[in-house]
Amino acid sequence: MKYPPVQYHEYLQLENIINSQNRRSADYNKPAHDEMLFIVVHQAYELWFKQIDFELNSIMEIFNQTLIPDSSMGTAVSRLERIISIQKLILGQIDIMETMTPLDFLDFREFLYPASGFQSLQWRLIETKLGLKQENRLNYQNEPFYKQLLPHQQDLVKETLSKESLIDLIEKWLERTPFLQMNQFDFWKLYQNSVNKMFQEDIHVVETNPRLSEDEKLRTIAMLKSSLSMFDCFMSEDRFKELQENGYFKLSFKSLRAALMIQLYRDEPIFQMPFRVLKSLQDIDENMTQWRYRHALMAHRMLGKKIGTGGSSGSDYLKSATEKHKIFTDFFNLTTFLIPRSQVPILPKDVLKKLHFAE
Amino acid sequence: MKYPPVQYHEYLQLENIINSQNRRSADYNKPAHDEMLFIVVHQAYELWFKQIDFELNSIMEIFNQTLIPDSSMGTAVSRLERIISIQKLILGQIDIMETMTPLDFLDFREFLYPASGFQSLQWRLIETKLGLKQENRLNYQNEPFYKQLLPHQQDLVKETLSKESLIDLIEKWLERTPFLQMNQFDFWKLYQNSVNKMFQEDIHVVETNPRLSEDEKLRTIAMLKSSLSMFDCFMSEDRFKELQENGYFKLSFKSLRAALMIQLYRDEPIFQMPFRVLKSLQDIDENMTQWRYRHALMAHRMLGKKIGTGGSSGSDYLKSATEKHKIFTDFFNLTTFLIPRSQVPILPKDVLKKLHFAE
Amino acid sequence: MKYPPVQYHEYLQLENIINSQNRRSADYNKPAHDEMLFIVVHQAYELWFKQIDFELNSIMEIFNQTLIPDSSMGTAVSRLERIISIQKLILGQIDIMETMTPLDFLDFREFLYPASGFQSLQWRLIETKLGLKQENRLNYQNEPFYKQLLPHQQDLVKETLSKESLIDLIEKWLERTPFLQMNQFDFWKLYQNSVNKMFQEDIHVVETNPRLSEDEKLRTIAMLKSSLSMFDCFMSEDRFKELQENGYFKLSFKSLRAALMIQLYRDEPIFQMPFRVLKSLQDIDENMTQWRYRHALMAHRMLGKKIGTGGSSGSDYLKSATEKHKIFTDFFNLTTFLIPRSQVPILPKDVLKKLHFAE
Amino acid sequence: MKYPPVQYHEYLQLENIINSQNRRSADYNKPAHDEMLFIVVHQAYELWFKQIDFELNSIMEIFNQTLIPDSSMGTAVSRLERIISIQKLILGQIDIMETMTPLDFLDFREFLYPASGFQSLQWRLIETKLGLKQENRLNYQNEPFYKQLLPHQQDLVKETLSKESLIDLIEKWLERTPFLQMNQFDFWKLYQNSVNKMFQEDIHVVETNPRLSEDEKLRTIAMLKSSLSMFDCFMSEDRFKELQENGYFKLSFKSLRAALMIQLYRDEPIFQMPFRVLKSLQDIDENMTQWRYRHALMAHRMLGKKIGTGGSSGSDYLKSATEKHKIFTDFFNLTTFLIPRSQVPILPKDVLKKLHFAE
Repeated sequence: MKYPPVQYHEYLQLENIINSQNRRSADYNKPAHDEMLFIVVHQAYELWFKQIDFELNSIMEIFNQTLIPDSSMGTAVSRLERIISIQKLILGQIDIMETMTPLDFLDFREFLYPASGFQSLQWRLIETKLGLKQENRLNYQNEPFYKQLLPHQQDLVKETLSKESLIDLIEKWLERTPFLQMNQFDFWKLYQNSVNKMFQEDIHVVETNPRLSEDEKLRTIAMLKSSLSMFDCFMSEDRFKELQENGYFKLSFKSLRAALMIQLYRDEPIFQMPFRVLKSLQDIDENMTQWRYRHALMAHRMLGKKIGTGGSSGSDYLKSATEKHKIFTDFFNLTTFLIPRSQVPILPKDVLKKLHFAE
Repeated sequence: MKYPPVQYHEYLQLENIINSQNRRSADYNKPAHDEMLFIVVHQAYELWFKQIDFELNSIMEIFNQTLIPDSSMGTAVSRLERIISIQKLILGQIDIMETMTPLDFLDFREFLYPASGFQSLQWRLIETKLGLKQENRLNYQNEPFYKQLLPHQQDLVKETLSKESLIDLIEKWLERTPFLQMNQFDFWKLYQNSVNKMFQEDIHVVETNPRLSEDEKLRTIAMLKSSLSMFDCFMSEDRFKELQENGYFKLSFKSLRAALMIQLYRDEPIFQMPFRVLKSLQDIDENMTQWRYRHALMAHRMLGKKIGTGGSSGSDYLKSATEKHKIFTDFFNLTTFLIPRSQVPILPKDVLKKLHFAE
Repeated sequence: MKYPPVQYHEYLQLENIINSQNRRSADYNKPAHDEMLFIVVHQAYELWFKQIDFELNSIMEIFNQTLIPDSSMGTAVSRLERIISIQKLILGQIDIMETMTPLDFLDFREFLYPASGFQSLQWRLIETKLGLKQENRLNYQNEPFYKQLLPHQQDLVKETLSKESLIDLIEKWLERTPFLQMNQFDFWKLYQNSVNKMFQEDIHVVETNPRLSEDEKLRTIAMLKSSLSMFDCFMSEDRFKELQENGYFKLSFKSLRAALMIQLYRDEPIFQMPFRVLKSLQDIDENMTQWRYRHALMAHRMLGKKIGTGGSSGSDYLKSATEKHKIFTDFFNLTTFLIPRSQVPILPKDVLKKLHFAE
Repeated sequence: MKYPPVQYHEYLQLENIINSQNRRSADYNKPAHDEMLFIVVHQAYELWFKQIDFELNSIMEIFNQTLIPDSSMGTAVSRLERIISIQKLILGQIDIMETMTPLDFLDFREFLYPASGFQSLQWRLIETKLGLKQENRLNYQNEPFYKQLLPHQQDLVKETLSKESLIDLIEKWLERTPFLQMNQFDFWKLYQNSVNKMFQEDIHVVETNPRLSEDEKLRTIAMLKSSLSMFDCFMSEDRFKELQENGYFKLSFKSLRAALMIQLYRDEPIFQMPFRVLKSLQDIDENMTQWRYRHALMAHRMLGKKIGTGGSSGSDYLKSATEKHKIFTDFFNLTTFLIPRSQVPILPKDVLKKLHFAE
């Protein structure tokens, strides 16, 4: 009671929230029942985008420090996980949209021209903040994606594009992981030994396998050697460039190595939260990707092969963008370089100690 | 392009939707991060309540006709099912709210006084339109539930209370089911025969069951007879009053009999959609009940045993209201009077014909 | 108590269900904790596939009648909807699988060779029964998809392939829709008039639109004419072949026209359930497609760019198959030919009467 | 290829999994379609119970160590969270069960006697392992709950009851939290100061509040004092017994104080994972509670007011057990004693250092 009293309706500004559904079909005297659903679903999306953006900003603030306090890692992870929860929920909102049939959509589709989801500022900001760059986007009508936005919105997007994104901040954070520089012991040498041993063993197993024909042996060994060659790229900074050039990786050599180390030693106390950060980023990316895919399926269902209201070539464009707009692909591809825990080099005691709590 | 062009942002009135999140904690210079989530979750609920209310209105309009065209039954069912989809989604919004911990809630709880979910007009309207009456509500601080609303909101609730609710309209619609009056064949006599035969058989099975002791037999037969006695109440309008008086049923004799008939003969074309209406109403009621229960669990978690912000005695009140505020209990209780399909009387051809499509 | 008593454990054959989880990693003295999850998730999938297959069989039985009783349409729809519910549930099982990290998977991956989801008989049967033909599948290692199954399983699949699938039965059922032959009134002529009127109007709107440049006008009109040309294909059986030849449609002219009619007149009592059949088939197909896509994403995450355990080229193959293996694409594409309800020809009274219940 | 090859079908023992669905209704020549769903849903539950039990065992193993290595906390949390994911999934299985209508259930209900969910060994083991004791269960027919199980299952339950449950292990683990004994600084004294200050402030605010009548002031202050009195119970081990005696708390004074400390200082690195342990236990408990409640609702719907197949008084019993069988209620009630972060005493540097990573 220390503060002036407040009523639910006023506190939540419900006057704005629940009185902002104006059916254009009704304005033009052809009221279409389902236009209300169409509006409400989109508004619910935008509400949640607002929340995702808000969490994202606070997470970026945390990672935008040269020295990130360990005591803020729990918060960072909780907020990443909250974004994941929200994404799972709003993926389900498509089910509700699909209670509207294509015929019902036709009742008011002509009133929407040329409005389109392409014009969602918040969605564009979220993609951009996570790290989707203009040059990695699927080309659309030969102009930057933000051209469909309102002028002041375009400025905001351009400003955001010019700043560091979450993936940029994460890359730098990874590069700073101190345990890579503990050079009295050379982790990567041990890792390389493990990898080589593994492959030699695998090749031996194939060569002595009575169930395989000579032909199969040759083919399998060739496959193994090509795999090993990929691992070799991960061993030296020089050869790593090959992986970057063919688009396998976008992040830096140093950051990816740190990410791999966090995964391999995720049980050590100091890596438990960073491991969750990496996992959460993959979850978020996967959820974005799923959402894009479902959106494409829904577009096909609602519009058939007509073009989308925003002038896009519709569901085909959306399907192509699904994969292309994935942001943290590097972490998915990194899985290739994991080795079984039984082969992971054991850390020396003095290194281990630094990964644990004070005594 | 027949109509003036419209932009996404403007069409969805996003200026109102995404700029109506004002954290009171920030107003008082103690910005609490999670207050944003608190606001957005509640606003998302209210957005969806708006949609549910909108669908409900259109459904009530359909049932508020003396002669409901068969061609609107599909629409009625689709809209009921849409409400169910929305309810399932928003049940999941509690998971998101619970990503906020009780400690985070304490950061801004003091700023909310005395705002409370009790003050949600739309939730109250939805309950009232479905059919929850003042006299069936759990008593709360000895005043009508709407006393916590703003004055003009109270008027709206009172007006709604004075009108027929969905359950009232459904009751009348059921009472009008024509096939109850086809008296050349007496359905209820046949049904009664089936019931009696069933019970006699059951009693015989018990009496001759070598696995049961005399004591168990007596107990089981007493139980069966008490069951049969309930069925008897369903046979005569006079004894039916007993079921109404002890609160087992609130709806009329006639409407409940029609509801039973629809369930037993749901496969006949003319009953396929009415059956879905009844099923959907139960789903909606069950979802409301579940929501109330989860809300009570969440309140316990967030507040412990402190009192709620609205001055309610908190989670205990919410738990008690959960069951008490169920609306379509009659249809759940009606299940008691179903008989196995193998015992359901076969309809004569001339009756059947009237339940089918024109030839 | 008429039947011998039965205990829960025995009735559900739990001895089989919960004692069939044998971790191979444990057999080889390298017990991997997460192998249990891997087994249980797959078994849960197979349990549900069993149920889907069971429902599918019963649905195919219904549609495999020359004269389908109207009283079985409600049942058919309920079972289709049950399949949809199951699909939504098991889509969520991937979330549980992903609580296993790639590193945990590596702990036991070597013991699984060459087992692979490609060897799921039930999944193959479900795809086949729904209507996925060998010739429409993505080529895989240049051999029929069933080659990876056990010999007796291959026979079962081949037998299933040789029979009519659900899509075949649905096609025939649609072709039998009687109201297409009511030739005293020529529906398709009216439909064609509506379409032509619509396009002429659209073209007029473009031509007189002051907001468009000459260039834009030309482009838009060309687009409209190309759309109209597609509609023309739908008007005559001859030109329809063009749509079949370019892969736009696989189903027959007659069946697709019936499907369109059902969609346009879905409110008429006799079409209410058939409309739900068509909608459910699309839902089922969309859910299968989503599942495939999520499976592909998961494979990428778990395996990186290594090849899959079954020797497939992994996630890339799975992603390509996602779209390719869609079965009811025709119904999605059919949306292109819907016209707004306001333009749909009004049916004459005598026709309408036949779409309603007996009087 | 190091190990003998294995096929999918054989590896997953699918012969057992998908051939163990025997409909008793078919045995007695009255095949009921929906009995298959009934069986499969229950089997799916039991499969997942197996997995939950498996995770639970491994979690209990971790906590059943006198010195729990910090490096296993990440694993413990992941497995608790996996249980939560599974619970969310199987809560949704009730939706699938409810695609079966009461009438469909009646088709085969008579064949199930006296089988009942009460006889699920795994469910009983999970409840028992989590910490539900016989004496805390709702009385059922005046005999121990395990009496309905098969003899060897009863032995297993009794043995489990005689061992320490997860809640017991958690209690001991909490009691061992070292930072409670750092007595050079007296945390609880500071906490008590904060609490007293808070209440004095609150009382002052009420007393000087011009919006309150004298009567309201008296009432509110009485309420605040009763709250303060509860806090006092938490201050001294003596008065704490009052809270135990009236059933507010079951856990020990020491363990609850540690739990509170973890919550208040959850951001300190050493508490980040323990905080997640406590949160996860509450989630698990809430999910169990929700499941019981939905089960009760479903029973009401399926059976009306007839008695359940296992002879229970049905849905009423289930509803009563819902709350009563909650296990970690102490942690929910503990929320009462949280104080706002702004009031939480600041830890001295030497204490803080011990809560951080080694330098």
